[in-house]
Amino acid sequence: MRIAVLTFDGFNELDSFVATALLNRVPGWRACITAPGARVVSMNGVQVYAQQPIEFTEEADIVLIGSGVRTRDVVSDSKLMARIRLDPARQIIGAQCSGALVLAKLGLLGDVPVCTDLTSKPWVVATGARVIDAPFHAAGTIATAGGCMAAHYLAAWAIAKGMGARGAGEAAARAVIDYVAPVGEKAATVARVMGVITPFMGDAAQEMVANRY
Amino acid sequence: MRIAVLTFDGFNELDSFVATALLNRVPGWRACITAPGARVVSMNGVQVYAQQPIEFTEEADIVLIGSGVRTRDVVSDSKLMARIRLDPARQIIGAQCSGALVLAKLGLLGDVPVCTDLTSKPWVVATGARVIDAPFHAAGTIATAGGCMAAHYLAAWAIAKGMGARGAGEAAARAVIDYVAPVGEKAATVARVMGVITPFMGDAAQEMVANRY
Repeated sequence: MRIAVLTFDGFNELDSFVATALLNRVPGWRACITAPGARVVSMNGVQVYAQQPIEFTEEADIVLIGSGVRTRDVVSDSKLMARIRLDPARQIIGAQCSGALVLAKLGLLGDVPVCTDLTSKPWVVATGARVIDAPFHAAGTIATAGGCMAAHYLAAWAIAKGMGARGAGEAAARAVIDYVAPVGEKAATVARVMGVITPFMGDAAQEMVANRY
Repeated sequence: MRIAVLTFDGFNELDSFVATALLNRVPGWRACITAPGARVVSMNGVQVYAQQPIEFTEEADIVLIGSGVRTRDVVSDSKLMARIRLDPARQIIGAQCSGALVLAKLGLLGDVPVCTDLTSKPWVVATGARVIDAPFHAAGTIATAGGCMAAHYLAAWAIAKGMGARGAGEAAARAVIDYVAPVGEKAATVARVMGVITPFMGDAAQEMVANRY
């Protein structure tokens, strides 16, 4: 599995690096910082080399879109947006916080509930998206997460979803969360994370969740 | 406040970037990726520019030592170790996971309980440190955290401790955790994080905790 962690200038380190670190823990998976240029600078001035160009988003099996303080500039840059080609029919796609703006611009949010952070919320609402007061939501192959620390939910969902078969996927997600969980709190952390994402794993379960909103 | 997030080759992205992102959220604080060379490469091949040289650890008000897959090489490199000068009398010092090996090598752990991750544990135990099955422990100005996701505890403690007066410090830590917490889970997340670090904030409280082990 090849994973693009889409990262723009002004990016929030938490979002891009939680995704990168967790997905790289799955044996055989390779998650890469994917950016428009050779280097990308975080909201706190950390300069990082891109591991893949933005065009990699088209080849990747999983694309996770990070958040940042300049996502509104990103979505208003039509040249830049034209370089992002996603296909929910063959890719697993997730957006963190303001990353939902990118999915909205690409017309991928439709009418499903969307999660984002409180700062980005008015901008995501303005796209016509249905923003909910929840940390995580997935519908089919597209998920959104709100609040930096919800990055763990997005990563765990991508792992579970990417591993395919329900049982194997959830086991892989559990194993990664168990590894990174605080010492002495592993069982509780795994239960908390899986409690958030499991309702979105099966088709029947997804319909139940959808009916809630 | 100037903060050094000490980061070595092979570093775990979660540790260095959770610390950087959270501490930079405090108004007037500046947390920098601090490394031995001009660039540092993560355990997953992400290349990052250092924002400060390793000698900055001597000037910084707070020093947080990240974890990684090559910390044992770091502590056996006496030239490199000689460049790290810490003083718990005037600095707030924290170590994440294998970062405890650096504190052990510098003789800063003494007899206090130490937290680290399960992979690093045998190596930390081998230094003579008293490793406990807990995510976080602090004694005075020195703290240790175990498990990547315990990075939030270490950052919250550093913020609370760095802000000085007990009430103001805890309020600042709460505000940052509230900001980064998942949407819809903010109160619960703040309560969980503060529940872990508050017992280590007051002097009397610290003695109570110390007596537990």
